[in-house]
Amino acid sequence: MVSLRAAARLRPSLTRIAPQFSLRAQRAFTASALKAAPSAETSYITGEPAGPRIKTEIPGPESKKAIKDLDTVFDTRSLNMLADYTKSIGNYIADPDGNVLLDVYAQIASIPVGYNNPALLKAAQTPEMASALINRPALGNFPSHDWAEVLRTGILTVAPKGLDQVFTAMAGSDANETAYKAAFMWRRQQERGGAHVEFTQEDIASSMLNQAPGAPQLSILSFKSAFHGRLFGSLSTTRSKPIHKLDIPAFDWPQATFPLFKYPLEDHVAENQKAEAEALADVERLITTHHLPPCAVVVEPIQSEGGDNHASPAFFQGLRALTKKHNVLFIVDEVQTGVGATGKFWAHDHWNLDTPPDMVTFSKKAQTAGYYFGNPELRPNKPYRQFNTWMGDPARALLFRAIIKEIERLDLVSNTAKVGDYLFSGIESLAKKYPGEIHNLRGKGQGTFIAFDSPRRDEFLKKAKGFGVNIGGSGEKAVRLRPMLIFQKHHADILLEALEKIVKS
Amino acid sequence: MVSLRAAARLRPSLTRIAPQFSLRAQRAFTASALKAAPSAETSYITGEPAGPRIKTEIPGPESKKAIKDLDTVFDTRSLNMLADYTKSIGNYIADPDGNVLLDVYAQIASIPVGYNNPALLKAAQTPEMASALINRPALGNFPSHDWAEVLRTGILTVAPKGLDQVFTAMAGSDANETAYKAAFMWRRQQERGGAHVEFTQEDIASSMLNQAPGAPQLSILSFKSAFHGRLFGSLSTTRSKPIHKLDIPAFDWPQATFPLFKYPLEDHVAENQKAEAEALADVERLITTHHLPPCAVVVEPIQSEGGDNHASPAFFQGLRALTKKHNVLFIVDEVQTGVGATGKFWAHDHWNLDTPPDMVTFSKKAQTAGYYFGNPELRPNKPYRQFNTWMGDPARALLFRAIIKEIERLDLVSNTAKVGDYLFSGIESLAKKYPGEIHNLRGKGQGTFIAFDSPRRDEFLKKAKGFGVNIGGSGEKAVRLRPMLIFQKHHADILLEALEKIVKS
Repeated sequence: MVSLRAAARLRPSLTRIAPQFSLRAQRAFTASALKAAPSAETSYITGEPAGPRIKTEIPGPESKKAIKDLDTVFDTRSLNMLADYTKSIGNYIADPDGNVLLDVYAQIASIPVGYNNPALLKAAQTPEMASALINRPALGNFPSHDWAEVLRTGILTVAPKGLDQVFTAMAGSDANETAYKAAFMWRRQQERGGAHVEFTQEDIASSMLNQAPGAPQLSILSFKSAFHGRLFGSLSTTRSKPIHKLDIPAFDWPQATFPLFKYPLEDHVAENQKAEAEALADVERLITTHHLPPCAVVVEPIQSEGGDNHASPAFFQGLRALTKKHNVLFIVDEVQTGVGATGKFWAHDHWNLDTPPDMVTFSKKAQTAGYYFGNPELRPNKPYRQFNTWMGDPARALLFRAIIKEIERLDLVSNTAKVGDYLFSGIESLAKKYPGEIHNLRGKGQGTFIAFDSPRRDEFLKKAKGFGVNIGGSGEKAVRLRPMLIFQKHHADILLEALEKIVKS
Repeated sequence: MVSLRAAARLRPSLTRIAPQFSLRAQRAFTASALKAAPSAETSYITGEPAGPRIKTEIPGPESKKAIKDLDTVFDTRSLNMLADYTKSIGNYIADPDGNVLLDVYAQIASIPVGYNNPALLKAAQTPEMASALINRPALGNFPSHDWAEVLRTGILTVAPKGLDQVFTAMAGSDANETAYKAAFMWRRQQERGGAHVEFTQEDIASSMLNQAPGAPQLSILSFKSAFHGRLFGSLSTTRSKPIHKLDIPAFDWPQATFPLFKYPLEDHVAENQKAEAEALADVERLITTHHLPPCAVVVEPIQSEGGDNHASPAFFQGLRALTKKHNVLFIVDEVQTGVGATGKFWAHDHWNLDTPPDMVTFSKKAQTAGYYFGNPELRPNKPYRQFNTWMGDPARALLFRAIIKEIERLDLVSNTAKVGDYLFSGIESLAKKYPGEIHNLRGKGQGTFIAFDSPRRDEFLKKAKGFGVNIGGSGEKAVRLRPMLIFQKHHADILLEALEKIVKS
């Protein structure tokens, strides 16, 4: 049912559509958005528009001017859309030309509870936040008297099952790299005979020369098409795209086959099982034979940048078993999958593991970063081994605490699971209706962490803006949906309508 | 002259001294602090105490309890002192037991303008800051409409001479690593014949396998005892201490001799010149013969973590000339030296170079991080080559802008130059008075970036707390002074008195 007020709010917002689209498309879109938006559902974020508003082409004249100016001091060649965050709200991102788009890319999957979320605004305005901003500690040396409480009431309340410690970091790349460092130290400590055994003179001297044994000939095993970051260690485990890797020296670390599923899953059960069995065999082969022995396996629950590649819980159970068998650590990179997007707080909660991962890394929607662990042996045997000046940012840790509270208050993980199912069904129907346009739909039962392949992906993403939706891609041909956790059924309706317009246009 | 009010404020604050020191030491310290503190000078930060206040041993009972609790969730073995930032002000750091110390370590040289600086507090409480905190963009894709202005009125106003571009990062390590990445891309682009030449199929295929030529056999040249960070690429250029490097795989990159000066400088002119000439020859040898050709040389203006090792402007001019000669980039790591501490905004301003460095990295006192550059060829030839989700943090960029304004308003770089000279003279006198206790005093004319060696360094630093001063070390035996930029003559007097008590005790 449409309230008069909602209809009034909605109508003017849809009067102008991107000029590059035909009047017919424009009318059709306006009509469908009018149909889609007015549900009885209340937005979690008060003040959200009822739908997108397209006033100019994107970028419009104001944006173009500003981009030209920005380019004189900042590389804008990867710029997707200039944003005006003061006017963005909830699921909607605004630009300087007055365009307002439903944002299902959400800053590369990193906005958890909406633009200008009032609860976060409140947290950002506390004296505690101001102090964290202006009195930034070197956490390892001079932690604040209430740091334990900040961790315990924030980051640690959502620690994955079985893990009760955290090492804080700044972003996904250094979260992964510090986890790798912990893994190397753990392995060498085992080789030495335990935490009490001192480094040898040879270890010490060779480490200063970047030579073995002090700088050991060991590796981290990752998977083909994986993405774990772009600094030197993390990039050595990243295998997503050449543009990420070209011209950067890398460690000669091994990559295992990732089981690339065929879709629809129900038609390829045996093939996909075989692919997973082969991938596990490849992992075992590399663990036992690679010339730089892996001390850890790192894996994303869903390969995200690499094209939204899924595997089954059985595969990950198999990985956990293999790593246990060969005394290799199991690191789960939840930088993109974590914090609710898959309909569980952590994507690996879907796997029902017997024993937890050894380390779980996080960033993005957490707005802070780090790795969780449980085994006390993963604390290096001496101080200052895992250390840097800031070791994270308490201001961002306070924000994560506010995010967690907001997720809990609104039960947003359940919301995401439910809305994800609804959205998936809707896209499934579209895929049947337009079989040439939507391929390999994936992410069923994985919240809103949904993707499909498009034969004209880049064009698809570009067109989406004209229909009022900001969408991202992943891999070579995937359209990846990464809505925020406050994405609701009525947003899903708007998205579904827009998707249909795109594939029809 | 002591005002009655200042004396009244001061006295109670000095009535209790750390119990581990004798009553005699206590009285002497109290008397000397009374003498030192009451100058006519007004503190830059209103509300600063007139001097330190020691109420318990450090850590005291409250701190001990809190540290024990913190240790259950966070590694506290490198903890130096638990702080209460709500009670810290200006140059003074407080703890939960009511102790207040003059802080000349300043969060490992990273607090620029004092705890709870009112100007920063104001910046932290603006709507702009709140928006930056809660609407964090993926800067490369969706920069804010005012990002150019934030850069231009902040980070770029202090860009080193000749450099007008910035790539923003999160901390010193990734600032350096992204600069290294830019260097590798630049070199390979030159080898290919320019920005317009496409990658070969071999480049593309081999990069995905972590093999040359796509992952090139090139290197970054750094110096012995250098510190450039602790992630995998930066750690490969770090040569400070084994504890920083042990058990972490490293690239087989070259390290050149750093000219370790003999002190006092005036007595070792010829020797030190010879050491610098030899170091430059070593750099040239490595550039021309190392099996992984260096595409850049990275150097700190003063090796900080490695023990406060200085070299002359002539040495750095020589380095610039050598790198030019061999078409190798010259990266100056100003993470610890930058933002005013040496009495110039950038330490390399002391060198009077003919041509600027190719890249200058920053972090710490900037409270944000990144690298400056000028040459357009250092923008990689395609988008997404130098890219990550957040690419820095606008909230921290806003804070740096407020820091810059505060530095300018109070003329703090000049202050630091002047107070540094005063402090250096004072320590020089102490070194003459206690020749066995203070060796190799260094940092003359380098602002407050002063250090000396102590025969019992760790004991020295520990004792300092009892006398109301928080001091850090560097290298194996250096006492490093890293006051904030608001450190004034009357603070220097307190520090000098405390230093004398320490060496006498």
